[in-house]
Amino acid sequence: MNKFDYDLIVIGAGSGGTRTARIAAGYGAKTAVIEGDRPGGTCVLRGCVPKKLLIYGSEFSKQVEDAQGYSWDIADFKSNWSELIIKKNKELNRLHEIYKSLIINAGCDLISGWGKIISENEVLVTNKNIKDKIISAKKIMIAVGGKSNFPKFSGNNFMINSDYALDLKKLPKSILIYGSGYIAVEFAGIFNGFGVETNLVFRADYVLKGFDLEIRKKLTEQLRKRGIKILSNTTIEKIEKKDKLLVQFSDYKKLNFHEVMGATGRMPNTEKLGLKKIGINVGERGNIIVNKFNQTNVKSIYAIGDVTDRINLTPVAIAEGHAFSDREFGNIVRFISYDNVPSAVFSQPPLSVVGLTLDEAKNLKLDVREYISEFNPLKNTISGKQEKTLMKLIVDNNDDKVLGAHMLGDYAPEIIQGIAIAIKAGAKKSDFDTTIGIHPTAAEEFVTMR
Amino acid sequence: MNKFDYDLIVIGAGSGGTRTARIAAGYGAKTAVIEGDRPGGTCVLRGCVPKKLLIYGSEFSKQVEDAQGYSWDIADFKSNWSELIIKKNKELNRLHEIYKSLIINAGCDLISGWGKIISENEVLVTNKNIKDKIISAKKIMIAVGGKSNFPKFSGNNFMINSDYALDLKKLPKSILIYGSGYIAVEFAGIFNGFGVETNLVFRADYVLKGFDLEIRKKLTEQLRKRGIKILSNTTIEKIEKKDKLLVQFSDYKKLNFHEVMGATGRMPNTEKLGLKKIGINVGERGNIIVNKFNQTNVKSIYAIGDVTDRINLTPVAIAEGHAFSDREFGNIVRFISYDNVPSAVFSQPPLSVVGLTLDEAKNLKLDVREYISEFNPLKNTISGKQEKTLMKLIVDNNDDKVLGAHMLGDYAPEIIQGIAIAIKAGAKKSDFDTTIGIHPTAAEEFVTMR
Repeated sequence: MNKFDYDLIVIGAGSGGTRTARIAAGYGAKTAVIEGDRPGGTCVLRGCVPKKLLIYGSEFSKQVEDAQGYSWDIADFKSNWSELIIKKNKELNRLHEIYKSLIINAGCDLISGWGKIISENEVLVTNKNIKDKIISAKKIMIAVGGKSNFPKFSGNNFMINSDYALDLKKLPKSILIYGSGYIAVEFAGIFNGFGVETNLVFRADYVLKGFDLEIRKKLTEQLRKRGIKILSNTTIEKIEKKDKLLVQFSDYKKLNFHEVMGATGRMPNTEKLGLKKIGINVGERGNIIVNKFNQTNVKSIYAIGDVTDRINLTPVAIAEGHAFSDREFGNIVRFISYDNVPSAVFSQPPLSVVGLTLDEAKNLKLDVREYISEFNPLKNTISGKQEKTLMKLIVDNNDDKVLGAHMLGDYAPEIIQGIAIAIKAGAKKSDFDTTIGIHPTAAEEFVTMR
Repeated sequence: MNKFDYDLIVIGAGSGGTRTARIAAGYGAKTAVIEGDRPGGTCVLRGCVPKKLLIYGSEFSKQVEDAQGYSWDIADFKSNWSELIIKKNKELNRLHEIYKSLIINAGCDLISGWGKIISENEVLVTNKNIKDKIISAKKIMIAVGGKSNFPKFSGNNFMINSDYALDLKKLPKSILIYGSGYIAVEFAGIFNGFGVETNLVFRADYVLKGFDLEIRKKLTEQLRKRGIKILSNTTIEKIEKKDKLLVQFSDYKKLNFHEVMGATGRMPNTEKLGLKKIGINVGERGNIIVNKFNQTNVKSIYAIGDVTDRINLTPVAIAEGHAFSDREFGNIVRFISYDNVPSAVFSQPPLSVVGLTLDEAKNLKLDVREYISEFNPLKNTISGKQEKTLMKLIVDNNDDKVLGAHMLGDYAPEIIQGIAIAIKAGAKKSDFDTTIGIHPTAAEEFVTMR
């Protein structure tokens, strides 16, 4: 007999937790999943999916501009945001039911409530509708993800976060978005596409710190050209609620907005997990520290995904959870690779990258060369739009291997996925060169860089 | 002193010929390019480029349908074909000027006229505006491409070809397109997108013979769903010009159309080159037969691109021409690889493929397995469109290498380009599996196939 209720308790039914539980259960592990919200997690309910749906919706206004360039006569068009939000929520309901079914059909117990770890093997589940209960397991997986994090200043409570922005009942006339990360630029694109006067304020010179500098500059310029007002080198010092929201900026300017959204970063959602009491090591941002087995310093307790604050991407959390359950319950000892993890920002235009930037390669003292291609896409020749696509390849001079690929422009996330596979397979620049292009595409530029 | 006028004469200033000439001239070869039409060739003036521009234009009507699904209220919209054709032609003028400059700036003589080979080293240039002249060269490159080819039946002269279709002064109310190849399905998408009653008639069961059968079936079905009337298993026996064009089909049906377009294939444009007289070997379709040096049986005469009727793709002709000039004038002996040449059909939705189909692999007696993924893209969940994306991977069971990738769905040509690089680099299925997905994209399905 097992001395615990379960072999595995997973706290959090997001993408990572759900995969962990399903795979473990598939190997016969008795598994419970604790979730206080609806199953689905950030990606499905508050992140990737709803944002992408709203991006799809927002793209039409730019499609109209392109079509006018292609001689379409378009009389009048307007969006219906509130109806779209209802449709979006209906789709999220469908998806969360799918997540629920996935968990239950895998044979896991889905327990509704918030989990707090109270010993090496015990989790307290609280749910305001039912009595608290304690469940135990041989192993506990923390997969609770992250949450929005605002800087401290007077009136920061007047800012909405991305969760709220995805559910606005109606569109504001104007919005100020605070931040320069992917959430900030993605939402700027959404609101701009739906005709909101959109302003973006951030401390840096350009959006998207950490990416290739030229791509950052170019995207910042392109956002501006698409009608987003950029307030760079500026922070918010204070927000007051008057008729509108009166924002005091660090450069002494004061401006009014109908809505202010904070997109200043996310942090691990570890506050209420009881980590300190049982002595789990966390980093400065509350991030759970794990070894290569995704194991914390408390041997029975593990963590995956955004709560570890490493590469905060859904597919990474899923891969970590899958590999964890393979190792712990399937006798398949394998580890995921954190090298060459591709990522994308669904800005308008989007960007996507895999591997090293030139600066990163130089910091690693690698002897590399860079190829750059910048071109006005074929579609723009007739529509007259001026928005250049930028591509870069970073190549190792010693063995000719491609170490990084970077792209800003339409379809970048779709294009970089295949390039990421090529890089994973060890592709050399000569492999790129000998691949025949698919004409006419944007992607073919990656095989004609000389 | 050179006993010939030139080191190299290139007949045809299309993509292949232009590249051949430029590279040769770059190595110091005295080069002439003979072109009777404007420089640019099929791809730039009558193929890839103008067709893709019209496809971009035609896509708006479907974007409107999607946008309506995303709660946009769109009052009224209509296209202006004749204005678009003027814009398109203006862009083609710009491109042909670029081609002209490329040739001249490389130091080549651009000679206006039609070339006919009259000896191993001599070409007769005829031009109705100037006197015939004969020029000579050590080597002659034939890069004249191909042209439309109609089957013989009474009234086939009432059919327009794709050259003409790209320049229609106004849109017909209805059109019948005869053929099932890429030109037929691409133009069907253009006319359908611009609101023309579009009919596609062909002998086979499904469009696009030679591609994966399931993809062919699915595309045929999707074209039908998008409003194109499909008349399969049928040929045209006769066309009579009455008020409209009265078409007699092989299944005894008779129907009227405002326009009939023939897209029944292309053939090498070799009739007037004088090949027979000097004994150059050609195949059944008039295709020039060449060895791996792109050399004909007459040692001083070479051919590249569609005139050899092998892989009739612009980037292949360009690659052949580039490698030829590297070998003959640059002392770089290299050959292009005809393995794993990717290609695309810009149907709506598009498809793209690289490498082997399951059937081709089986015919080669390879021990392979197939992965299939079929899904309704995220965008369609809200718009309500039913149009599934289909992806396939063919994997060698012996060494785990990916031998083929096939996709039907939005962005397929952009997505397959990177996959083609991966396959060129020898990617195994395990490389696909260990690549992290870019979420949410369609392309990520290629790394999550199990």
